[in-house]
Amino acid sequence: MFSTGFPTDGPTLGDIGEHAAIQVIVDAAPSSVNGDDAAVLMHASPNSRAVATTDMLVEGRHFRSDWTTPFQLGRKAIVQNFADVEAMGARPIAALLAISAPVHTPVAVVRGIAEGIASRCDEYAAELVGGDLTAGEQLVLSVTAIGSLGGNLPELSLDRARVGQRVVAHGRIGYSAAGLALLSSGRKIPDSLVPLVESHQAPCLTPGRGVIARAAGATAMTDNSDGLVQDLQLIATRSGVGINVSSVSIQPDALLIEAGELLGVDPWLWVLSGGEDHTLLGTTSGQAPAGFRSIGQVTKGDAVRIDGRSPKFGEGWHSF
Amino acid sequence: MFSTGFPTDGPTLGDIGEHAAIQVIVDAAPSSVNGDDAAVLMHASPNSRAVATTDMLVEGRHFRSDWTTPFQLGRKAIVQNFADVEAMGARPIAALLAISAPVHTPVAVVRGIAEGIASRCDEYAAELVGGDLTAGEQLVLSVTAIGSLGGNLPELSLDRARVGQRVVAHGRIGYSAAGLALLSSGRKIPDSLVPLVESHQAPCLTPGRGVIARAAGATAMTDNSDGLVQDLQLIATRSGVGINVSSVSIQPDALLIEAGELLGVDPWLWVLSGGEDHTLLGTTSGQAPAGFRSIGQVTKGDAVRIDGRSPKFGEGWHSF
Repeated sequence: MFSTGFPTDGPTLGDIGEHAAIQVIVDAAPSSVNGDDAAVLMHASPNSRAVATTDMLVEGRHFRSDWTTPFQLGRKAIVQNFADVEAMGARPIAALLAISAPVHTPVAVVRGIAEGIASRCDEYAAELVGGDLTAGEQLVLSVTAIGSLGGNLPELSLDRARVGQRVVAHGRIGYSAAGLALLSSGRKIPDSLVPLVESHQAPCLTPGRGVIARAAGATAMTDNSDGLVQDLQLIATRSGVGINVSSVSIQPDALLIEAGELLGVDPWLWVLSGGEDHTLLGTTSGQAPAGFRSIGQVTKGDAVRIDGRSPKFGEGWHSF
Repeated sequence: MFSTGFPTDGPTLGDIGEHAAIQVIVDAAPSSVNGDDAAVLMHASPNSRAVATTDMLVEGRHFRSDWTTPFQLGRKAIVQNFADVEAMGARPIAALLAISAPVHTPVAVVRGIAEGIASRCDEYAAELVGGDLTAGEQLVLSVTAIGSLGGNLPELSLDRARVGQRVVAHGRIGYSAAGLALLSSGRKIPDSLVPLVESHQAPCLTPGRGVIARAAGATAMTDNSDGLVQDLQLIATRSGVGINVSSVSIQPDALLIEAGELLGVDPWLWVLSGGEDHTLLGTTSGQAPAGFRSIGQVTKGDAVRIDGRSPKFGEGWHSF
């Protein structure tokens, strides 16, 4: 069985007020640089550059309070932002958290989110360094991640894939979408498929893979947030290349097949268009960096293909 | 007369879709480092540190669509975040913007916000370098500001006010609250009082005053966001000092008096507890830095006083 659901009782944000609620967050995710008008981060190392990205999670749209826990939500918010930092080849060092929440929100929800953020930040040796907390009609989290890009190598940008390079990936592909489909189905979820649900609730990446890939000669990178085909297409378009993915390298594993059979869904749908796994997807002229596997080649052309053919499923996530 | 109100017609975010809407923002606030997974900022100068802060603006709580324009809202979002960066003695260099908006929001609203952000960023030689756009029930803006703190001087923290120092201020005090009171009154607002309304819609600060104050020997600083007494009290508490403000130096000017008479309100209410002017409030052992005026002294004790007495109004803004 998996953990799910937001706490619904106990004191609310309205009961304890803004200052006490902020203290709950700071206690759950302590940092020596938090608490002033702005956070001052560490001295920059020579030639380093700061990297910044932001993502918003809206209740009912990006998450449901009955399908996740606050702790998992906090972890997911960090993973999706830190994956963007890693996809530049940079090291995440800090996060900021702005929350808008209804006045009746239990304090335990905010505490759980902050604990999840702290737990995931710890794994990256990063800190929650600042934020904002305000009332609103809907629970909205806005996380900003800041990273450090050391040395003189260029960042891993979307436009630096070159014909002949290897396409590499670090992380699961299709698990998050399969987990969401299981939750959406309303069925009882067999224990064997819990890893899929947990991958949706809080996808897992090994910290530091973006830095390793950059050091090992990768040139372009993104993360699988909107769907494999759609995200690879972004690299292809920006770089003016085609990408051919080998179907064998991304084929649904036993769990995805089992979930597909249970729900009557072709598991390739999740693999090709699922998104939210935050898998790092890059291109390199060398071998696959440690932790990455080869999934294809950069080719001439302008489209993403699977074994040389148009993908069966390609449409990914759109916000509107 | 002043400008106000959000556009209500024309194509909506739902009509044009996420990618086109993001393009509208990027066109209104162009940046060479926007558009990848994360933005890579300039090479850090020797000994510099990055500074980061975030603030959320929720429709109906922090702004009303009939009392401001999208352009003004964009400017205000930047000012309130950049004031936090300046209050550390740092220079704002970049902003990120996450927006959650109902699908039926006119594109012109988002364009106006982005234009306001770009216009205010320009004045700081800063750029909008990234963001996120998503659907939600309510219009919510979350802006993150990133600054650069050069050199080896300590930052201007809340806990570095020392007994005997001068208290200094840069910017208006009370204007934003008076402007809000005028808008809230529902009365016809005389042309003479329009500067108060405009100060509420988008408070104005001269860029760079925090850096100047730090170079000139200031040690503690914050900005007047929640109310003069409340924000000075934060410095007093964190520094373990008292603060005595001279009433002459902050007394309501002719505009505040006129607005007070019109509304039957003691204008000292706006001066002492108003907030949202984002006036820089600091302490220094030297003369007032260029652009700052003296408003009082750091004393022994633990409270903020006006001419040695407890303030008539002190309660400022609370989010819950």
